[in-house]
Amino acid sequence: MEVTIKPQYWTNRRTIRSYTDKPVDPSLIESLLEQAAHAPTTGNMQLYSVVASWSADEKAALAPAHFNQPQVTRAAVVLTFCADVNRYTRWLEEHGQDAGFDNLQSFMAATLDTALVAQQFNTLAEGASLGVCMLGTTTYNAADIAATLNLPHGVIPIITLTVGWPANDGAETGRLPLKAWYHNGTYAPNTAQAIKKAYADKEARPDSRQWVAENQATSLAQVFATARYPRTTNEQFSAKFLDFLRSQDIL
Amino acid sequence: MEVTIKPQYWTNRRTIRSYTDKPVDPSLIESLLEQAAHAPTTGNMQLYSVVASWSADEKAALAPAHFNQPQVTRAAVVLTFCADVNRYTRWLEEHGQDAGFDNLQSFMAATLDTALVAQQFNTLAEGASLGVCMLGTTTYNAADIAATLNLPHGVIPIITLTVGWPANDGAETGRLPLKAWYHNGTYAPNTAQAIKKAYADKEARPDSRQWVAENQATSLAQVFATARYPRTTNEQFSAKFLDFLRSQDIL
Repeated sequence: MEVTIKPQYWTNRRTIRSYTDKPVDPSLIESLLEQAAHAPTTGNMQLYSVVASWSADEKAALAPAHFNQPQVTRAAVVLTFCADVNRYTRWLEEHGQDAGFDNLQSFMAATLDTALVAQQFNTLAEGASLGVCMLGTTTYNAADIAATLNLPHGVIPIITLTVGWPANDGAETGRLPLKAWYHNGTYAPNTAQAIKKAYADKEARPDSRQWVAENQATSLAQVFATARYPRTTNEQFSAKFLDFLRSQDIL
Repeated sequence: MEVTIKPQYWTNRRTIRSYTDKPVDPSLIESLLEQAAHAPTTGNMQLYSVVASWSADEKAALAPAHFNQPQVTRAAVVLTFCADVNRYTRWLEEHGQDAGFDNLQSFMAATLDTALVAQQFNTLAEGASLGVCMLGTTTYNAADIAATLNLPHGVIPIITLTVGWPANDGAETGRLPLKAWYHNGTYAPNTAQAIKKAYADKEARPDSRQWVAENQATSLAQVFATARYPRTTNEQFSAKFLDFLRSQDIL
């Protein structure tokens, strides 16, 4: 599949969570993955694997781990991108070597490799007119996903992409101004004034105001701190993920 | 800056470690970063920051943390992409909220956000004919980099990109066959035969054979297990990074 990305793509890209029933040809996914694999990778080790779930049963088995977000079962295919030191370790061991990849740095390298190839695939897939939604919930229930996909020791689900032909155009969500997150020389402190400037446009958006109203909140910040990413949830799933990483000898 | 990516880009992209003396216009980097920020991000939180090092002094200050790899001082600009929960925490606190982002899941979300925007910038920069090298050493000496860049609590260096106008074409490095890392339904075990198939082409490459000879090794696997990523080094820098993550209240 030949993919051209035009200039208007970059700032207009949108997450697509709704898909038509039209199937996606597995060979298209394979072609896009092959191209995506040329993304940078630490020491050219490619410390990742991708597991594709095509059938209704396979997708339904993954859905609970993703809090039953509807795009998981409605996608043409669900791709679970995993940090993988198992394959590399097995290669080294086949050659009689001691493979020292069961540690935090190797997990970081594998996680970054995984994210880079997932992002490159995302761009390619969107360039091929597919709709993609990247699920941030993958590490929440990583152990459950690993069991469902029969992942061996040292293979950690990191990013999930639901993929299909778009049923809508998605929504424009906006981004922070560059000055909020780009620093020259050294990091400029996040003063009260800097924070106010950084988030002013985001807070003023109609969709933000609507969200605040729907949640009967006093501010957008309150929606995120209490409804979307409350401390209790973050800490509960951190403990769960920590247990999983320890069971994989990473920590 | 308008960036078009043509089909031949995807599988021909190459890391560039050598740059000409021609300066890079800061406004070009800003334009590319602004476009890259439309990459997916968890809950549209953009849990990242980028610090640009332009001057010779700034680059020299970073070089030791990157083991004095020459591309750090020779690049037109060094970009340190950081997982950043500080800004978001400050925003929530300014609105009187309890920000529960000092934990492993928030660090994972921030790390992935950071990798995704770094990869999107990488593609855009290469599309703009810049040469880029992604340094895998950033997490090795993250605490040192944080001190150099004056990063506040909760801002963790994750990926460094050296950027400049290419002085050469870079080298083609090859990738594993898709079947080595792509699974349908469930993960197929890494049997001895599967491993042999996965790495056969890589081992047979002339540059691999040369590397084995230069290291007086018995196999490419031995080069990686003993010279490039030995257990002792991986574990030493894992302990160092773990200490840093604990100092940032992430673990």
